[in-house]
Amino acid sequence: MLVATALVLMMTVPALALFYGGMTRSRSVLNMMMMSYGAFGIGAIVFVLWGWSMGWGGAGNGQLIGNPFEMFGLSGVSWHSTADGTGSPYVGVLFQLTFATITAALISGAIADRVKFSSWMVFVPLWLTLCYFPIAHNTWGGGFIYSHLSQQDYAGGTVVHINAGIAGGVLALIIGRRRNWPKEPMKPHNLTLTMAGAGLLWFGWYGFNVGSVVLAGDTAEASTAQFMSETGFTFMNTTLATCAAMLGWLLVERLMHGKATSLGAASGIVAGLVAITPACGAVGLAGAIAIGAITGAVCAWAVGLKFKFGLDDSLDVVGVHLVGGLLGTILIGFFSTDVAPGGVNGLFYGGGFESLINQTGAALFTMVWTGVFTAIIAYAIKFTIGWRVSEDEEVEGIDYNEHGESAYELAGRGGRMTTAAAPTPSRPSAESLDLEGAK
Amino acid sequence: MLVATALVLMMTVPALALFYGGMTRSRSVLNMMMMSYGAFGIGAIVFVLWGWSMGWGGAGNGQLIGNPFEMFGLSGVSWHSTADGTGSPYVGVLFQLTFATITAALISGAIADRVKFSSWMVFVPLWLTLCYFPIAHNTWGGGFIYSHLSQQDYAGGTVVHINAGIAGGVLALIIGRRRNWPKEPMKPHNLTLTMAGAGLLWFGWYGFNVGSVVLAGDTAEASTAQFMSETGFTFMNTTLATCAAMLGWLLVERLMHGKATSLGAASGIVAGLVAITPACGAVGLAGAIAIGAITGAVCAWAVGLKFKFGLDDSLDVVGVHLVGGLLGTILIGFFSTDVAPGGVNGLFYGGGFESLINQTGAALFTMVWTGVFTAIIAYAIKFTIGWRVSEDEEVEGIDYNEHGESAYELAGRGGRMTTAAAPTPSRPSAESLDLEGAK
Amino acid sequence: MLVATALVLMMTVPALALFYGGMTRSRSVLNMMMMSYGAFGIGAIVFVLWGWSMGWGGAGNGQLIGNPFEMFGLSGVSWHSTADGTGSPYVGVLFQLTFATITAALISGAIADRVKFSSWMVFVPLWLTLCYFPIAHNTWGGGFIYSHLSQQDYAGGTVVHINAGIAGGVLALIIGRRRNWPKEPMKPHNLTLTMAGAGLLWFGWYGFNVGSVVLAGDTAEASTAQFMSETGFTFMNTTLATCAAMLGWLLVERLMHGKATSLGAASGIVAGLVAITPACGAVGLAGAIAIGAITGAVCAWAVGLKFKFGLDDSLDVVGVHLVGGLLGTILIGFFSTDVAPGGVNGLFYGGGFESLINQTGAALFTMVWTGVFTAIIAYAIKFTIGWRVSEDEEVEGIDYNEHGESAYELAGRGGRMTTAAAPTPSRPSAESLDLEGAK
Repeated sequence: MLVATALVLMMTVPALALFYGGMTRSRSVLNMMMMSYGAFGIGAIVFVLWGWSMGWGGAGNGQLIGNPFEMFGLSGVSWHSTADGTGSPYVGVLFQLTFATITAALISGAIADRVKFSSWMVFVPLWLTLCYFPIAHNTWGGGFIYSHLSQQDYAGGTVVHINAGIAGGVLALIIGRRRNWPKEPMKPHNLTLTMAGAGLLWFGWYGFNVGSVVLAGDTAEASTAQFMSETGFTFMNTTLATCAAMLGWLLVERLMHGKATSLGAASGIVAGLVAITPACGAVGLAGAIAIGAITGAVCAWAVGLKFKFGLDDSLDVVGVHLVGGLLGTILIGFFSTDVAPGGVNGLFYGGGFESLINQTGAALFTMVWTGVFTAIIAYAIKFTIGWRVSEDEEVEGIDYNEHGESAYELAGRGGRMTTAAAPTPSRPSAESLDLEGAK
Repeated sequence: MLVATALVLMMTVPALALFYGGMTRSRSVLNMMMMSYGAFGIGAIVFVLWGWSMGWGGAGNGQLIGNPFEMFGLSGVSWHSTADGTGSPYVGVLFQLTFATITAALISGAIADRVKFSSWMVFVPLWLTLCYFPIAHNTWGGGFIYSHLSQQDYAGGTVVHINAGIAGGVLALIIGRRRNWPKEPMKPHNLTLTMAGAGLLWFGWYGFNVGSVVLAGDTAEASTAQFMSETGFTFMNTTLATCAAMLGWLLVERLMHGKATSLGAASGIVAGLVAITPACGAVGLAGAIAIGAITGAVCAWAVGLKFKFGLDDSLDVVGVHLVGGLLGTILIGFFSTDVAPGGVNGLFYGGGFESLINQTGAALFTMVWTGVFTAIIAYAIKFTIGWRVSEDEEVEGIDYNEHGESAYELAGRGGRMTTAAAPTPSRPSAESLDLEGAK
Repeated sequence: MLVATALVLMMTVPALALFYGGMTRSRSVLNMMMMSYGAFGIGAIVFVLWGWSMGWGGAGNGQLIGNPFEMFGLSGVSWHSTADGTGSPYVGVLFQLTFATITAALISGAIADRVKFSSWMVFVPLWLTLCYFPIAHNTWGGGFIYSHLSQQDYAGGTVVHINAGIAGGVLALIIGRRRNWPKEPMKPHNLTLTMAGAGLLWFGWYGFNVGSVVLAGDTAEASTAQFMSETGFTFMNTTLATCAAMLGWLLVERLMHGKATSLGAASGIVAGLVAITPACGAVGLAGAIAIGAITGAVCAWAVGLKFKFGLDDSLDVVGVHLVGGLLGTILIGFFSTDVAPGGVNGLFYGGGFESLINQTGAALFTMVWTGVFTAIIAYAIKFTIGWRVSEDEEVEGIDYNEHGESAYELAGRGGRMTTAAAPTPSRPSAESLDLEGAK
């Protein structure tokens, strides 16, 4: 469980930061990474102060929100393991903490390249407080949704992905487009970072989905054997859906544009992970492959829609997390099977519409709640401290203007070396001038 | 065990992709990474469909291959943990799945920079089916070799490394050299990626070698105490051999060429890991250091042979995995000791030639089987869909032509910042020539 | 425990190498990474040969040092798990091995860009032998300090960080400054590497601090429940202190220089991890946040002092590890509470000065011992094989001159590609303008 928690932490810092950072232009990569790191830093403190209390307080009260002062600063939460050795309650807090922080960090992809770092650092605690903690309370903390809809959400399809996706879309709308978008092609500046980030996200996601078995098990009075069975099951589903989504995305790209891209592979991996997150305990192997392939294919098409709608969702938070999260959450209604740990049959397995209705209801609730409150926060910031850096600063590069830094200083990579490496007679002098020059 | 499996997954995605990607030229890095990611994607699906059945079906039948339909799509494989809590059988499947996929991915290093991505995606399932699953069946699945030779292969010296190494060599031979190789020096474009990849491979390799203790334990009816002892033992051997191999490689480089390189350190790490993989449960500490040092030194010399033979094994799959795998497998015959978990004495510890003969026999069997079937697949692809991109496309860069992308867009990294960093006025034209143009 | 050990190994190879490597100039990054990799390679061998024996031999003898021959090459150390299943003793050896090697690697940051690789590879085993093993023996191995001062050092505040910090400072002083330092601005060449390295260090640090609970538990006869409680507790403290330190550093930067930098975030993370390392079992949540915030703020200011003193501690080993380690070690005297596993009240919780005196005493002992012996080794190397590369070699780049390599070969990233990727015919010149200057 501690390993799972460390893995989910690693997903934000550094995996998501690399995944997103590689997709920005080179003049914005540090700012992008700082949004993930900053979200973790401020989010973790806030989570311990009042987040745990708001999300998991008043257990089973069936209400929309917990009392932030009930367990303020974890007061009343013991760090001692219970006698039967189920582990320190702090570990459960930490695991949820890593979920909250990565959800906030995910949003940042929608508003890359144009936002003041200080505004972001104000936004994160507000958003966690008004959107994340309530939705978590409703879904996992025994709140309203939990009491009224027996929704299945293993590891955060609604709480993490639909939540982050809708917030990203609303923010991108209110904050507005980048200068020259979409006229100027804003290509990823370093796809090796994005590929590495996607790989590490995949690695960390096992913490996400497998660690969630323990939480699910808490309520289900799981025995060790059952726990081990379920972790194996969700691990398998996570792996297959992710592979299927990557292949599905690449295939659609190939058919639509003639080439399968590495950005598509990385995005397909994330889309598949997003979609299987709510479903990994509810569907069988064939269902996992189907959900993965469908999600990969649909998201590959959906990320193009932003150009149609003129929404500068810069790194496709809506196209991947909202669409992928919705697909995963709703497809459970079709593909869930009582052979899986979830134990409910969906439409394709002879079940009724109940599962489908429950899933859709929970997704809608999340979208409306978070959509409204995100808009309120976004406008509040817009009309007070403001969101955007100046036009000049944005064009010159937000890394330099917000952080005083440049990600890369590759120029002077040593003269004689380069000479040796460059057999063509015309290059040395050019490069040597370049490198050595007047320095 | 789940952690071990996640670690081995991480070895392919992203560790191997980074290790290999950094060694290619910058115009080929995405293609190289995609070969690893793609191999995992397609390989995992194939493994679940018929790979597990072919490799581990008909347990102990003593035959060359299992029936692919016996457990097609894992039918008949329960995900439920057995009553005594040994874990879900799915975990064993997943662990083997990650081995199969990394083996396929390893091959890609031999044919960097010149192969159509679609052909690679056809090759991988064919190769797994005709080469990997049979060899795995013979070695681990109770097949022919297992029944006739009591070979020691803890974590895949033959199945993974000799197998990948011989396949890479055969493919490189049949597919042919890159244009201008070896005249044009094809230097690694980003050694920090290669170093990072090597480090992450090392980290993940503990999943490889330590996780394999569990599998070994299955047959040996290991108690918990024995299991913990053996994991500690293999962990120690893996660490020492890897360090010794890195030092051995650096020393040979220093003596032969005057400088110890970072590429040598990274390659030495991998060579050491390869060599100790089959041996980590069979030899003592001194044996592990010796095998590591010998392998590092020999491989440092062996990677130069490709120039002599004119074989464009681009990233030294033969020199590292075949040579390292053979050394590790065969040196067991000399260094194995009955103090280690393996419990057999090799030549240097008063044992007979039996161990040496068994090890060599299994290695030869693998080389012949995989060599022949790889050649058949390679020719089949060559004379149908073809392997190579066009000469123009290869010279221009395979990333752009196969994937429509460029790994790096570092140029516009923000004006004002750069001004400060670049004092010389004479640089612009130099760089634009270099970057844009005359090449 | 094995996972914890693998995590700590990953901290040196590749996390620290990336963290440090990104901060050097591009002509020195490989050399910097090689210092970490090399330190691990030689350090691991030395540790097994005589390090374990010197550090942990003669348990509880109350003396300054253990006998290197007592358990030379781990002779007499069984790899078998004890009957009660507490795990193979080899695992404890490996865990300590990873601590020793990362401590040596940490030192390298103080002397970046100017030292012969061979001299470094001679320094590491000498330093481990004369400084690390004795201090470890005194603190953890039942030696002098342990017998005379009941110091609290959970995971290496003195042994790792104060030790490395003082050694780095002494080395930087004796080896001298880089050419043109501090006139020439020596900017980090790749902050994405540094950010990624800091993130991976954070991930690995949980191995550091959580794994240490097991060691601490050995003496305290911890039950499983107690063990699980303490790991949860230290995990929480580690997380909060790190977040607080990152925020503290960024805030001070913002106030002092107007901008919060990514280098500051990465450095703040490391400073926080350093400070909480000794304290994570001794203080409560509020104490952890306070120690983190204080350390982040103080270190952000302290790293500027080197310019005042003219000490070219290139990557701030003194400013981060010595200052952070001292703060963490000494602040325990104020913030420790008997609610935490450590069970001692510091000044702020009604305790006496005893804790403060013990902590300060242990820190002073380490600084004097390591300061003196590091100076002896440094002068011995200076007057025999010498430390520095030639002035020409240093200016041209140490990667090429010491290792014959260049980290990046990004120039020729494919001709037509670049042309095609740039639809506007004016881009080449635009780009060159952009890169070089006139913007």
